[in-house]
Amino acid sequence: MTIVYDRVALIGLGLIASSMHWAIKRAGLAGEVTGYARSSETRDTAREIGLCDRVCESAIEAVKDADLVVLCVPVGAMEAVAKEIAPYLKTGATVTDVGSVKKAVIDAVAPHIPADVHFIPSHPLAGTEHSGPRSGFAELYDNRWWLIVPAEGADVAAVAKLRALCEGMGANVDEMNAEHHDLVLAVTSHTPHLIAYTMVGVADDLRRVSESEVIKYSASGFRDFTRIAASDPTMWRDVFLNNKEATLEILGRFTEELFALQRAIRTGDGEHLHDYFTHTRAIRRGIIEAGQDTDAPNFGRAPGPVKGES
Amino acid sequence: MTIVYDRVALIGLGLIASSMHWAIKRAGLAGEVTGYARSSETRDTAREIGLCDRVCESAIEAVKDADLVVLCVPVGAMEAVAKEIAPYLKTGATVTDVGSVKKAVIDAVAPHIPADVHFIPSHPLAGTEHSGPRSGFAELYDNRWWLIVPAEGADVAAVAKLRALCEGMGANVDEMNAEHHDLVLAVTSHTPHLIAYTMVGVADDLRRVSESEVIKYSASGFRDFTRIAASDPTMWRDVFLNNKEATLEILGRFTEELFALQRAIRTGDGEHLHDYFTHTRAIRRGIIEAGQDTDAPNFGRAPGPVKGES
Repeated sequence: MTIVYDRVALIGLGLIASSMHWAIKRAGLAGEVTGYARSSETRDTAREIGLCDRVCESAIEAVKDADLVVLCVPVGAMEAVAKEIAPYLKTGATVTDVGSVKKAVIDAVAPHIPADVHFIPSHPLAGTEHSGPRSGFAELYDNRWWLIVPAEGADVAAVAKLRALCEGMGANVDEMNAEHHDLVLAVTSHTPHLIAYTMVGVADDLRRVSESEVIKYSASGFRDFTRIAASDPTMWRDVFLNNKEATLEILGRFTEELFALQRAIRTGDGEHLHDYFTHTRAIRRGIIEAGQDTDAPNFGRAPGPVKGES
Repeated sequence: MTIVYDRVALIGLGLIASSMHWAIKRAGLAGEVTGYARSSETRDTAREIGLCDRVCESAIEAVKDADLVVLCVPVGAMEAVAKEIAPYLKTGATVTDVGSVKKAVIDAVAPHIPADVHFIPSHPLAGTEHSGPRSGFAELYDNRWWLIVPAEGADVAAVAKLRALCEGMGANVDEMNAEHHDLVLAVTSHTPHLIAYTMVGVADDLRRVSESEVIKYSASGFRDFTRIAASDPTMWRDVFLNNKEATLEILGRFTEELFALQRAIRTGDGEHLHDYFTHTRAIRRGIIEAGQDTDAPNFGRAPGPVKGES
């Protein structure tokens, strides 16, 4: 139990912020955690479940005297929040964010941060398909990666402190630049999400296959896509609008490959298909060996409830 | 414990057949289960783990006096097996298969089945990313759907008996025709698998993002795709070669939708994206209410092992 920051302010109280709160408390990393959410319903829920030591009625109140301010709002809302709180930030404080894109957030936030405050963007690679203040849990960041994206010449001590917080919450930390971050995430997160949303949309929109059939027969593969496609719509809209370039690049590569496989199906090129499908198994093994997923069949999902019990 | 068939023969001893064996034993649905696999290694494994009451050295031996013969081989191998066993089938016996496509299997198998034997194609909508004789478990079919695809004029009593076996193994049963089956599965299974294989292939092939980065940062969404893309390559090659028409139709629809979303990203049409992403949440709710998936975050996966333990 080592306190890293005396006071941490969480702006926005959804899945990421609430998990941060519980992870900070689990390890005793902060003296006090304050919080603010725009919706009064969210603030009431936070008070009800003990999320944050103090839930404030404004972002300005929440960041007062905070040593670390974490912007946990959708990417499209970052600039307005930064602008609002900027004049009230404590000298020497650190501001970070948890946005899924970095170049656009830096462009939007950095100009507003005073010279005597450290802005160190970051991004935890963890989440679930649930959202809102009740969805957080202390273990979310255990053994997940938290990427820190410091600007050139960033204060070494301030970066080290943020890293200590992330590691204290259970995460592994890597540093990289914003451009590379956005490309890596376009591959590992943004494009997969867009594809999952698309597949679910297609299934929902077919006249010749009913929605009830899609739902009943989803265990044959489709249901995995629906989990991802149940993620928060506002967050994901903002991700795509703000990581346009990298997402479109990876989508282009994806379409190219898909067309090649489509041609192999059309022409009956079984060897091409078999080679492709064999190759992709290796990545799965790598992910399991790296502790980033379970090897239990179907992610360890329990088999469905026996008929009549469901 | 009601015996449905005195003797069941399983031809091919992978995930589906081995799960059938354990599910049949759990409910006492057959007097004897015989089994055969082409590879002697698989037969040895089956004997070692007690899979099947009797593991035979040929398919012909396994089907002798069997009341139900289940073809559990990849779709592309169905015809050869049917041809081989046809002369040795018992009068009044039923032959079924568990292939993921139905029109092509019917075309390949039906011509070989003698007039005094019932051929009733079927398809259990259940599986995992694992394969082989050790991957089966008795609960695989609990509350999953098993589709039966009888030809017009199929023997009503024989269909009822097959249905009783499937239900005895824990499954729900629906009947439909082969063409509709192949379209439904193209949506709920075949296209999602192809897309997952493609996404994993793209990630593996990028020069500017290393494989190690893809693996480490996979928890941001990508890892879900790798599970599906770790499925058996031979099985899936045969699925695509044998459900060409329906898969290409759904792929066409998918590409159309993907291009529309891509255009929305390029033009910054946030409203279109937000609407689309909101709509897809409803299907997820339907699937959870239908007992076809868990509502636990991340499929109930345990958080990653704490650092140093993995």
